[in-house]
Amino acid sequence: MNLKEAFHRVDKCFSQWITEEVNDQYSKVAKIKGQDIPWHNHENEDEMFYIIEGQLIMEVENQPDFIMKKGDLYVVKKCINHRVSSPEECLIILIETKTIEHTGKVKTGITKSIDEQLY
Amino acid sequence: MNLKEAFHRVDKCFSQWITEEVNDQYSKVAKIKGQDIPWHNHENEDEMFYIIEGQLIMEVENQPDFIMKKGDLYVVKKCINHRVSSPEECLIILIETKTIEHTGKVKTGITKSIDEQLY
Repeated sequence: MNLKEAFHRVDKCFSQWITEEVNDQYSKVAKIKGQDIPWHNHENEDEMFYIIEGQLIMEVENQPDFIMKKGDLYVVKKCINHRVSSPEECLIILIETKTIEHTGKVKTGITKSIDEQLY
Repeated sequence: MNLKEAFHRVDKCFSQWITEEVNDQYSKVAKIKGQDIPWHNHENEDEMFYIIEGQLIMEVENQPDFIMKKGDLYVVKKCINHRVSSPEECLIILIETKTIEHTGKVKTGITKSIDEQLY
Protein backbone atom coordinates (compact mmCIF):
# COMPACT_ATOMS: atom_id res chain seq x y z
CA MET A 1 0.00 0.00 0.00
CA ASN A 2 1.35 3.40 -0.95
CA LEU A 3 0.10 6.34 1.08
CA LYS A 4 -0.55 8.56 -1.94
CA GLU A 5 -3.01 5.96 -3.26
CA ALA A 6 -4.50 5.60 0.20
CA PHE A 7 -5.14 9.33 0.52
CA HIS A 8 -6.84 9.35 -2.88
CA ARG A 9 -9.41 6.99 -1.40
CA VAL A 10 -10.06 9.26 1.56
CA ASP A 11 -12.05 11.79 -0.40
CA LYS A 12 -14.01 13.41 2.38
CA CYS A 13 -12.35 15.45 5.06
CA PHE A 14 -12.63 13.85 8.51
CA SER A 15 -12.97 10.48 6.82
CA GLN A 16 -10.46 7.88 7.80
CA TRP A 17 -9.64 4.64 6.09
CA ILE A 18 -8.06 1.49 7.46
CA THR A 19 -5.00 0.59 5.38
CA GLU A 20 -3.30 -2.16 7.39
CA GLU A 21 -3.81 -4.53 10.27
CA VAL A 22 -0.78 -5.02 12.52
CA ASN A 23 -1.23 -7.17 15.61
CA ASP A 24 -4.27 -5.79 17.50
CA GLN A 25 -3.96 -2.37 15.85
CA TYR A 26 -5.12 -0.71 12.65
CA SER A 27 -3.11 1.82 10.72
CA LYS A 28 -5.40 4.37 9.13
CA VAL A 29 -5.03 7.37 6.88
CA ALA A 30 -7.15 10.45 7.44
CA LYS A 31 -7.67 13.90 6.01
CA ILE A 32 -8.42 16.65 8.49
CA LYS A 33 -9.78 20.06 7.49
CA GLY A 34 -11.80 22.41 9.69
CA GLN A 35 -12.88 22.00 13.27
CA ASP A 36 -15.74 19.48 13.13
CA ILE A 37 -14.13 16.83 15.33
CA PRO A 38 -15.58 17.22 18.85
CA TRP A 39 -13.66 17.08 22.12
CA HIS A 40 -13.56 13.40 23.10
CA ASN A 41 -11.46 10.70 24.69
CA HIS A 42 -10.94 6.95 24.29
CA GLU A 43 -11.49 5.16 27.57
CA ASN A 44 -9.21 2.19 26.88
CA GLU A 45 -7.05 3.11 23.90
CA ASP A 46 -4.02 5.25 23.12
CA GLU A 47 -4.03 6.91 19.69
CA MET A 48 -0.89 7.72 17.69
CA PHE A 49 -0.86 10.63 15.23
CA TYR A 50 1.80 11.02 12.53
CA ILE A 51 1.73 14.01 10.18
CA ILE A 52 2.31 13.34 6.47
CA GLU A 53 1.37 16.72 5.01
CA GLY A 54 0.07 19.99 6.40
CA GLN A 55 -0.31 21.06 10.00
CA LEU A 56 -2.57 19.75 12.73
CA ILE A 57 -3.73 21.79 15.71
CA MET A 58 -3.65 19.44 18.70
CA GLU A 59 -5.68 20.43 21.73
CA VAL A 60 -5.16 18.25 24.80
CA GLU A 61 -6.77 18.85 28.17
CA ASN A 62 -4.62 20.52 30.83
CA GLN A 63 -1.81 21.50 28.51
CA PRO A 64 -1.20 24.28 25.97
CA ASP A 65 -2.42 23.65 22.41
CA PHE A 66 0.35 22.85 19.97
CA ILE A 67 0.79 22.55 16.22
CA MET A 68 2.00 19.27 14.73
CA LYS A 69 3.96 19.54 11.48
CA LYS A 70 5.15 17.09 8.84
CA GLY A 71 7.17 14.30 10.44
CA ASP A 72 5.77 14.87 13.95
CA LEU A 73 4.59 11.90 16.01
CA TYR A 74 2.40 12.23 19.10
CA VAL A 75 0.47 9.76 21.22
CA VAL A 76 -2.74 10.80 23.00
CA LYS A 77 -2.97 8.48 25.96
CA LYS A 78 -6.21 6.74 26.90
CA CYS A 79 -8.80 8.75 28.87
CA ILE A 80 -7.24 12.09 27.86
CA ASN A 81 -9.68 14.56 26.31
CA HIS A 82 -8.47 15.93 23.01
CA ARG A 83 -9.57 17.58 19.78
CA VAL A 84 -7.76 17.97 16.46
CA SER A 85 -8.39 20.49 13.70
CA SER A 86 -6.72 22.16 10.77
CA PRO A 87 -7.59 25.30 8.79
CA GLU A 88 -6.03 23.71 5.67
CA GLU A 89 -6.09 20.06 4.61
CA CYS A 90 -3.80 17.91 6.73
CA LEU A 91 -2.92 14.28 5.91
CA ILE A 92 -2.16 11.97 8.80
CA ILE A 93 -1.53 8.35 9.74
CA LEU A 94 -3.19 6.97 12.85
CA ILE A 95 -2.22 3.86 14.80
CA GLU A 96 -5.16 2.71 16.90
CA THR A 97 -6.43 -0.38 18.66
CA LYS A 98 -8.99 -2.15 16.47
CA THR A 99 -11.77 -1.61 19.00
CA ILE A 100 -11.39 2.17 19.24
CA GLU A 101 -14.45 4.33 18.60
CA HIS A 102 -13.75 7.23 16.22
CA THR A 103 -14.86 10.05 18.51
CA GLY A 104 -15.10 8.06 21.73
CA LYS A 105 -18.50 8.24 23.45
CA VAL A 106 -19.28 11.50 21.64
CA LYS A 107 -21.19 10.97 18.38
CA THR A 108 -21.62 13.68 15.75
CA GLY A 109 -22.38 13.83 12.03
CA ILE A 110 -18.73 13.15 11.17
CA THR A 111 -18.37 10.07 13.39
CA LYS A 112 -17.44 6.94 11.40
CA SER A 113 -18.00 3.35 12.49
CA ILE A 114 -15.21 0.79 12.01
CA ASP A 115 -17.21 -0.67 9.08
CA GLU A 116 -17.30 2.73 7.40
CA GLN A 117 -13.52 3.03 7.86
CA LEU A 118 -13.01 -0.30 6.10
CA TYR A 119 -14.93 0.82 2.96
CA MET B 1 8.78 13.90 18.71
CA ASN B 2 9.85 14.93 15.24
CA LEU B 3 11.21 12.19 12.99
CA LYS B 4 14.17 14.23 11.77
CA GLU B 5 15.37 14.54 15.36
CA ALA B 6 14.69 10.87 15.93
CA PHE B 7 16.78 9.82 12.94
CA HIS B 8 19.65 11.99 14.20
CA ARG B 9 19.72 9.76 17.27
CA VAL B 10 19.90 6.59 15.20
CA ASP B 11 23.48 7.03 14.16
CA LYS B 12 24.39 3.46 13.34
CA CYS B 13 22.87 1.63 10.41
CA PHE B 14 20.66 -1.28 11.50
CA SER B 15 20.12 0.45 14.83
CA GLN B 16 16.58 1.11 15.77
CA TRP B 17 15.25 3.40 18.43
CA ILE B 18 11.92 3.36 20.24
CA THR B 19 10.21 6.74 19.86
CA GLU B 20 6.68 6.15 21.16
CA GLU B 21 4.56 3.69 23.09
CA VAL B 22 1.02 3.25 21.79
CA ASN B 23 -1.13 0.63 23.48
CA ASP B 24 0.88 -2.63 23.46
CA GLN B 25 3.06 -1.49 20.55
CA TYR B 26 6.23 0.54 20.10
CA SER B 27 6.85 2.85 17.18
CA LYS B 28 10.52 2.80 16.26
CA VAL B 29 12.76 4.56 13.77
CA ALA B 30 15.52 2.67 12.01
CA LYS B 31 18.22 3.23 9.44
CA ILE B 32 18.90 0.36 7.08
CA LYS B 33 22.00 0.14 4.89
CA GLY B 34 23.59 -3.02 3.54
CA GLN B 35 22.48 -6.60 3.92
CA ASP B 36 23.46 -7.50 7.50
CA ILE B 37 19.98 -8.34 8.73
CA PRO B 38 19.55 -12.13 8.62
CA TRP B 39 16.51 -14.05 7.41
CA HIS B 40 14.22 -14.38 10.44
CA ASN B 41 10.63 -14.42 11.58
CA HIS B 42 8.67 -13.35 14.64
CA GLU B 43 6.65 -16.23 16.03
CA ASN B 44 3.88 -14.15 17.63
CA GLU B 45 4.14 -10.68 16.20
CA ASP B 46 3.28 -8.83 13.00
CA GLU B 47 5.71 -6.06 12.00
CA MET B 48 4.71 -2.93 10.07
CA PHE B 49 7.24 -1.15 7.85
CA TYR B 50 6.74 2.40 6.60
CA ILE B 51 9.32 4.04 4.35
CA ILE B 52 10.33 7.63 5.14
CA GLU B 53 13.32 8.03 2.82
CA GLY B 54 15.20 5.79 0.41
CA GLN B 55 14.29 2.34 -0.81
CA LEU B 56 14.04 -0.95 1.05
CA ILE B 57 14.45 -4.35 -0.56
CA MET B 58 11.85 -6.60 1.06
CA GLU B 59 12.38 -10.34 0.76
CA VAL B 60 9.50 -12.49 2.00
CA GLU B 61 9.37 -16.28 1.79
CA ASN B 62 7.31 -17.77 -1.03
CA GLN B 63 6.80 -14.54 -2.93
CA PRO B 64 8.87 -12.38 -5.28
CA ASP B 65 11.18 -9.79 -3.68
CA PHE B 66 9.91 -6.24 -3.99
CA ILE B 67 11.20 -2.74 -3.43
CA MET B 68 9.47 -0.45 -0.96
CA LYS B 69 9.68 3.27 -1.70
CA LYS B 70 8.90 6.45 0.21
CA GLY B 71 5.31 6.37 1.47
CA ASP B 72 4.94 2.58 1.17
CA LEU B 73 3.44 0.61 4.05
CA TYR B 74 3.76 -3.16 4.40
CA VAL B 75 3.00 -5.61 7.19
CA VAL B 76 5.04 -8.82 7.57
CA LYS B 77 2.67 -11.21 9.31
CA LYS B 78 3.82 -13.34 12.23
CA CYS B 79 5.75 -16.55 11.46
CA ILE B 80 6.67 -15.35 7.96
CA ASN B 81 10.39 -15.49 7.16
CA HIS B 82 11.71 -12.21 5.83
CA ARG B 83 14.84 -10.13 5.34
CA VAL B 84 15.27 -6.43 4.58
CA SER B 85 18.24 -4.65 3.05
CA SER B 86 19.19 -1.52 1.18
CA PRO B 87 22.26 -0.61 -0.87
CA GLU B 88 21.84 3.06 0.17
CA GLU B 89 20.64 4.41 3.51
CA CYS B 90 16.92 3.92 4.02
CA LEU B 91 14.93 5.52 6.86
CA ILE B 92 11.90 3.65 8.14
CA ILE B 93 9.27 3.61 10.87
CA LEU B 94 8.36 0.28 12.45
CA ILE B 95 5.24 -0.56 14.44
CA GLU B 96 5.88 -3.64 16.56
CA THR B 97 4.50 -5.38 19.64
CA LYS B 98 6.61 -4.44 22.68
CA THR B 99 7.72 -8.03 23.20
CA ILE B 100 9.12 -8.54 19.69
CA GLU B 101 12.72 -9.73 19.35
CA HIS B 102 14.70 -7.69 16.81
CA THR B 103 15.78 -10.57 14.57
CA GLY B 104 13.48 -13.23 15.99
CA LYS B 105 15.26 -16.36 17.22
CA VAL B 106 18.26 -15.58 14.98
CA LYS B 107 20.96 -13.58 16.80
CA THR B 108 23.82 -11.86 14.97
CA GLY B 109 26.23 -9.00 15.70
CA ILE B 110 23.61 -6.43 14.67
CA THR B 111 20.82 -7.77 16.89
CA LYS B 112 19.61 -5.20 19.43
CA SER B 113 17.79 -5.96 22.70
CA ILE B 114 14.74 -3.88 23.64
CA ASP B 115 16.90 -2.10 26.26
CA GLU B 116 19.38 -1.13 23.57
CA GLN B 117 16.52 0.22 21.45
CA LEU B 118 15.38 2.44 24.34
CA TYR B 119 18.83 4.11 24.67
